[in-house]
Amino acid sequence: MMIDGKRLLLNLAAFRRFSDTPGSGVTRFSYGSQDAKARRSIINRAKRIGCPVRIDAVGNIRIGLPSNQPGRPAIFCGSHIDTVRNGGWLDGIYGVCSALEVLETLAERGRKKATRNFETVIFAEEEGSNFGSTMTGSKFITGKYGNEDLERLTADNGKTMRQVLQEAGLEPETTAGSQLDPVPWDLSNVAAMLELHIEQGPVLDRAGIPIGIVDSIFGMRVVEVVLTGVGNHAGATPMSERHDPLSAAAECILAAESMVAADPNKRAVVTVGKLEVQPNCSNVIPETVRFSIEVRDSNNEKINRYMSEIIHDIREIALNRDVNCQIHEHSSSKPLHLDDGVREVIRQTAESSGISYRVMDSGAVHDACMIAEASVPTGMIFVPSIDGRSHVPEEDTKGEDLIRGTQLLMDVIETLLTQTEEEQ
Amino acid sequence: MMIDGKRLLLNLAAFRRFSDTPGSGVTRFSYGSQDAKARRSIINRAKRIGCPVRIDAVGNIRIGLPSNQPGRPAIFCGSHIDTVRNGGWLDGIYGVCSALEVLETLAERGRKKATRNFETVIFAEEEGSNFGSTMTGSKFITGKYGNEDLERLTADNGKTMRQVLQEAGLEPETTAGSQLDPVPWDLSNVAAMLELHIEQGPVLDRAGIPIGIVDSIFGMRVVEVVLTGVGNHAGATPMSERHDPLSAAAECILAAESMVAADPNKRAVVTVGKLEVQPNCSNVIPETVRFSIEVRDSNNEKINRYMSEIIHDIREIALNRDVNCQIHEHSSSKPLHLDDGVREVIRQTAESSGISYRVMDSGAVHDACMIAEASVPTGMIFVPSIDGRSHVPEEDTKGEDLIRGTQLLMDVIETLLTQTEEEQ
Repeated sequence: MMIDGKRLLLNLAAFRRFSDTPGSGVTRFSYGSQDAKARRSIINRAKRIGCPVRIDAVGNIRIGLPSNQPGRPAIFCGSHIDTVRNGGWLDGIYGVCSALEVLETLAERGRKKATRNFETVIFAEEEGSNFGSTMTGSKFITGKYGNEDLERLTADNGKTMRQVLQEAGLEPETTAGSQLDPVPWDLSNVAAMLELHIEQGPVLDRAGIPIGIVDSIFGMRVVEVVLTGVGNHAGATPMSERHDPLSAAAECILAAESMVAADPNKRAVVTVGKLEVQPNCSNVIPETVRFSIEVRDSNNEKINRYMSEIIHDIREIALNRDVNCQIHEHSSSKPLHLDDGVREVIRQTAESSGISYRVMDSGAVHDACMIAEASVPTGMIFVPSIDGRSHVPEEDTKGEDLIRGTQLLMDVIETLLTQTEEEQ
Repeated sequence: MMIDGKRLLLNLAAFRRFSDTPGSGVTRFSYGSQDAKARRSIINRAKRIGCPVRIDAVGNIRIGLPSNQPGRPAIFCGSHIDTVRNGGWLDGIYGVCSALEVLETLAERGRKKATRNFETVIFAEEEGSNFGSTMTGSKFITGKYGNEDLERLTADNGKTMRQVLQEAGLEPETTAGSQLDPVPWDLSNVAAMLELHIEQGPVLDRAGIPIGIVDSIFGMRVVEVVLTGVGNHAGATPMSERHDPLSAAAECILAAESMVAADPNKRAVVTVGKLEVQPNCSNVIPETVRFSIEVRDSNNEKINRYMSEIIHDIREIALNRDVNCQIHEHSSSKPLHLDDGVREVIRQTAESSGISYRVMDSGAVHDACMIAEASVPTGMIFVPSIDGRSHVPEEDTKGEDLIRGTQLLMDVIETLLTQTEEEQ
């Protein structure tokens, strides 16, 4: 069944405009006004083609085919619609638009011999832009997050997730008679989850290969480090009297970098992406520096070993400079191997379409990983990111690659929809 | 003539409350609402004791004695009322309250045999909190800044200094018939300038000496460095593919620190006080890092030599990491030797009062330096800062030290007021 490539690209271009920072990439945080516009557009589109829409208590959306039949196993397909600040126009929303394109194609053409239902799933708050915790929507779906997290997760302005949800017209604790679905979801009858995503790294683009089939996902561990020294006048305090937390942070950044860059198989990565200085004036020695450190690899023991060594180094650096050091665990996810059966369907479909592909791991974690951890057979497909750039305004993928990825997704879903549980 | 120590401390305590951050130190930026309250309080106090108040086009204030006579040489005494963000309760305002205390004491008691006038001078925008340029008010007084700087200096919100002044009810270009004095001032008839200030460093407090008499002031040079790398997804980009400007900045900070810490006479200082990361998300490799580097010393050649070496190192670090590097000169001031005659009056006055003192240099630059550069004989007196802390909420000085400093200032001014130009 052929998707409508032109319609796909037009839809993607339309979502690009739902941004708080037009001209400087896409900034569309969950529960904000641009997010609301994007959601309305999706819901209107679904209703136009007669597809029932359900929204859950934290804003995840699921859209079924009109032909879905109660009790049949379901194929889920989707991604997220939120972005980082000044992010790209494809991260997340490409998977959403592709899943909607598949939905629309199936709704238009019907599929008599389907043995399974199809649902497009749109996850809320994947990027962690509001509350600093990634994949929040899918964590609520799978029960990894619950009621207590609605208070624990707070935005920079001090509002709890519960408050933010209420202001967005959602109702975190669904009561009888609510219009909203409860979380967690019942996933026992989900036969497979598919997520199509841009690679966000340089591997496919460098190799000139249009499709990546993901076999494993990097795990990650993020800590927040707070170094507190002695803020003081920058002219009147001799170098020997200083307890400068920014110099200490500089040492920590370089120590972490050189340790992980020496990784024997060159896959582990460490990133200090967020750093804030207080009071942040050119003529005041900093008092406090707060920064994140994130380690990722496909091997969980290696992640923990690197992080332990980094934390050990940080404490030593702080001690040497007589700077107070506090380290908080921020978040973590384990590395994950995706379902062999689903991967094989993707691989065979690519083969039979004559598309070259690479089986690869993913340095980025995705909502599909949360669903996979909840024992749903899960597959992921990547398309190339030009120059490997993502989470920045320059993020881009060739139109032909976007269409090719969505057509492959369509073909894979057609196969999965007609499988029986015995075949799988 | 005895000052009223209790009144001095009460006045200082009153100004402490004019803060945008009560409970977290004093934040009182020039031209803001707390600054306006502080100014009104000063002007009301001056008017109550019959002292004429003049305000200039950029908000500097001068308050004369009722007994001043036209044409006589003047003794200037004062400091600034603005603060850094979350600064201390004494920096600047101590010198202002002391000068007002001297004014009040002189106004109450009269001084028949004075051969000179006395004026309390209150400088605007010393800390550079609005426009990133220190001693702005005194630079306009001396003509170092002029009309074109009203457009060049811009606040973080993009407003020019001209706009900020206009919104504060000031009128940068004074016209005939204006209520405001023009800038620059005519300083040809100023016989001396005195500024009393907290030390802002640990020297006096460590030595247990209550008075510092400043003979020289550190010069400084500040540059802004902008490093631009390649922002990217933190998981999907291998270490070897990164051009991380924050790692580069970390190298720059440590290179500058180790170079200046090796200074043979241990006086030169280098500070990175301000650093900002874009986009500043834990899961995005930074795209841009912007930071200040400030070098200070009492020797101008040494300042320039260190800064050149630091800039050379930064360019090399950026080159090695293939990160774009832009360096902008931000501001600078030359080291300064204060007037021998005024210093000798301060020294003799301290001696005859039996107060122990130290003749010392100042790592911090003050408004008095701008006035000194305009060929006005200038003196500065320091009182100890507890633990050498300044520009932070913990900034403090013992009450007895505050009173002692102000009494010494009073005594020095009495001597200077009765000197004739031949004596000096």
